[in-house]
Amino acid sequence: MSELRGACIIGQSGGPTAVINSSALGVIRTALDTDCITRVLGAAHGIRGVLDEKLYDMGVEDAAELELLKYTPSSALGSCRYKLKDPDVDDSDYKRILEIFQKYDVRYFFYNGGNDSMDTCNKISKYMQKVGYECRIMGVPKTIDNDLNGTDHCPGFGSAAKFIATTCMEVHRDAHVYDTGMVTVIEIMGRHAGWLAGSAGLATWAGYGPDLIYLPETDFDLTDFLDDVARIYRNTGKCMVAVSEGIHHPDGSFVSEAKVSATDGFGHAQLGGLAAMLAEAIKMETGAKVRGIELSLLQRCGSHTASKTDIEEAYLAGKAAVEAAVSGVTDKMVAFLCKREGGYHCETILQPLDIVANIEKKVPREWINAAGNGVEQPFIDYVLPLIQGEPDALREASLPRFAKLKKVLTTDIDG
Amino acid sequence: MSELRGACIIGQSGGPTAVINSSALGVIRTALDTDCITRVLGAAHGIRGVLDEKLYDMGVEDAAELELLKYTPSSALGSCRYKLKDPDVDDSDYKRILEIFQKYDVRYFFYNGGNDSMDTCNKISKYMQKVGYECRIMGVPKTIDNDLNGTDHCPGFGSAAKFIATTCMEVHRDAHVYDTGMVTVIEIMGRHAGWLAGSAGLATWAGYGPDLIYLPETDFDLTDFLDDVARIYRNTGKCMVAVSEGIHHPDGSFVSEAKVSATDGFGHAQLGGLAAMLAEAIKMETGAKVRGIELSLLQRCGSHTASKTDIEEAYLAGKAAVEAAVSGVTDKMVAFLCKREGGYHCETILQPLDIVANIEKKVPREWINAAGNGVEQPFIDYVLPLIQGEPDALREASLPRFAKLKKVLTTDIDG
Repeated sequence: MSELRGACIIGQSGGPTAVINSSALGVIRTALDTDCITRVLGAAHGIRGVLDEKLYDMGVEDAAELELLKYTPSSALGSCRYKLKDPDVDDSDYKRILEIFQKYDVRYFFYNGGNDSMDTCNKISKYMQKVGYECRIMGVPKTIDNDLNGTDHCPGFGSAAKFIATTCMEVHRDAHVYDTGMVTVIEIMGRHAGWLAGSAGLATWAGYGPDLIYLPETDFDLTDFLDDVARIYRNTGKCMVAVSEGIHHPDGSFVSEAKVSATDGFGHAQLGGLAAMLAEAIKMETGAKVRGIELSLLQRCGSHTASKTDIEEAYLAGKAAVEAAVSGVTDKMVAFLCKREGGYHCETILQPLDIVANIEKKVPREWINAAGNGVEQPFIDYVLPLIQGEPDALREASLPRFAKLKKVLTTDIDG
Repeated sequence: MSELRGACIIGQSGGPTAVINSSALGVIRTALDTDCITRVLGAAHGIRGVLDEKLYDMGVEDAAELELLKYTPSSALGSCRYKLKDPDVDDSDYKRILEIFQKYDVRYFFYNGGNDSMDTCNKISKYMQKVGYECRIMGVPKTIDNDLNGTDHCPGFGSAAKFIATTCMEVHRDAHVYDTGMVTVIEIMGRHAGWLAGSAGLATWAGYGPDLIYLPETDFDLTDFLDDVARIYRNTGKCMVAVSEGIHHPDGSFVSEAKVSATDGFGHAQLGGLAAMLAEAIKMETGAKVRGIELSLLQRCGSHTASKTDIEEAYLAGKAAVEAAVSGVTDKMVAFLCKREGGYHCETILQPLDIVANIEKKVPREWINAAGNGVEQPFIDYVLPLIQGEPDALREASLPRFAKLKKVLTTDIDG
């Protein structure tokens, strides 16, 4: 494969995570250090930044500030939820992307995101192949939901799982402090896959966690649920429950559906208020004092309690994407291949974008208990290595010190 | 003052904090190491444990496990919200407490709690004086609300403030990631005092925090609030708001009152759902995408991001209580006297229980801005020293390792 010289673009898309910027750093740092990559551009708000020609020149950033991206949550370059149209129906976006790629001599495109981002990546890749524009396009995985196909796990998941487990342990202690009855319902993200809700099981494994955990992989039955809660509450005076926001009735409708008020750009229902709703139902059933707690954005941006393993793997994914592209690879997503027996080991592999895009990987049914209200040991064994290690994050005045990027637009530099 | 030999009881009461167990350890460790204290008893669920004769023998606990109390959130001995009656109306509880004190030869009583607990402490102290039972009674302060009179600040507050500031910084990054509009409302604890809500100002001070902060020290006007939010949202496309759960109309009624569903044992209204309610009002006013986030129990039990200063001061308060009592002091609460100019310095002093009990210390009006929607620099200067330092907490498998106490009841030991 002959050397391909040219600029690269890195974009971030979808919901932020605690470590998505570590992946961006992996791309940026490696690209800056690679001779054949002549300029490293960051797209403002993902693919929207390409369409709008809002591209930051990452080469002007201070190296020490860039390093802090490892410990800076959310998407430092900005994110979007913009869905590219089918190019056979409307190719105007693709023509515009090609125009920008040509203008900046972009020969490498790295897209850092989840399912929808891999779909975007895939469509751009196929279009560039069709029109014969030589460009290497790589997906860098990211999603707290951990639902990407073709990879052992996704960067971002481990840190979110660690936040959830740590928080559940602390809330468990708090919710068990009084000599009066108390039921606590914790609502956890994850529309269609229960990886995050299941991670509350780490808290139970550690001795202080939910008595009951409900994942969207099984149908939710309100009567069974209330029976489960009432039984534990009667026996112990307390009950702690973790539920995925995506729990649903047998017909597929979300339990939280009554609260659905809007949809995001991809037509996903926006969920919320489920914990409060279930807490109210429990109160009516049992008369218990109840508290519904929604972990909300905290679980995806909680960088102060990120997993060091997750941070390092996220970086590695970005680095591997650049190295693969420079060596001639295109149209792939970086994925993880891991072994757990005899000590955890993780290495990067490359997967075709086709097999990744738009498929949601679920928690295996056998990792959930028969009653559908808890997780089994294989689930714990799977997640535990992913949450290991504490971040060596810089603090100022004991508060997080996030990366301060100059974000200089090419249009300001180039005139 | 002649030496007073006898047993001591330590009890914990009121809402838990991240560091209340560090205070308990300060009492327990110091008492165990003090010759004239013949036995160290822990009351299960505060004063209820005395009334019910549920007393743990702390002397049988493993020393290393006791040390972990420094990093174990919530009240390890259990808490209560039991209010003692006026002894002139009904002295049956006091008679029972005296009976238990006599049975175990209890000469030292340490009560670890907030306003209501200091009231309990004060009543018991006055009763024992009245009936002529020699016993030294000391309050050890605790409250995330930071509203105790007679002390610079309260153990528990610094850690909660740090959790709030850290979380606000992270959520700020998350809420600013998209190129579309977004309004975020963060609901923070604090019924009548705005110390916790004001601490969100630390995040703003650090560069990533709420645009608007509303404390219960000023009257809340919904029209002004919506105007403030709409103005910032129009100008920047984003707005982040922090509100105290205790914001109220000029007539004193809570803004969240519609959601009040129950009262706790002291007749306090239980608040909640305010963030969602305000988010909905903002959505109707501006059409913006909104998100309401209630920090809920997480802010008071978040020991993983506790302040080392807070942990150490909490320990010091417990230790000082024992030392003072042994030296002959009674009827006092340990308080902090601090200086901030020329470097932070904190020392313990003793305050009469009378001046502490049932008075709520508020944020000075001049520390809040004129518009009543933010805090001024003196507030920041006050809080900043209290959040300093990271805990050296033990972890197992990268999860918190809480103290595991045997909790052996005296009734089991003594037969």
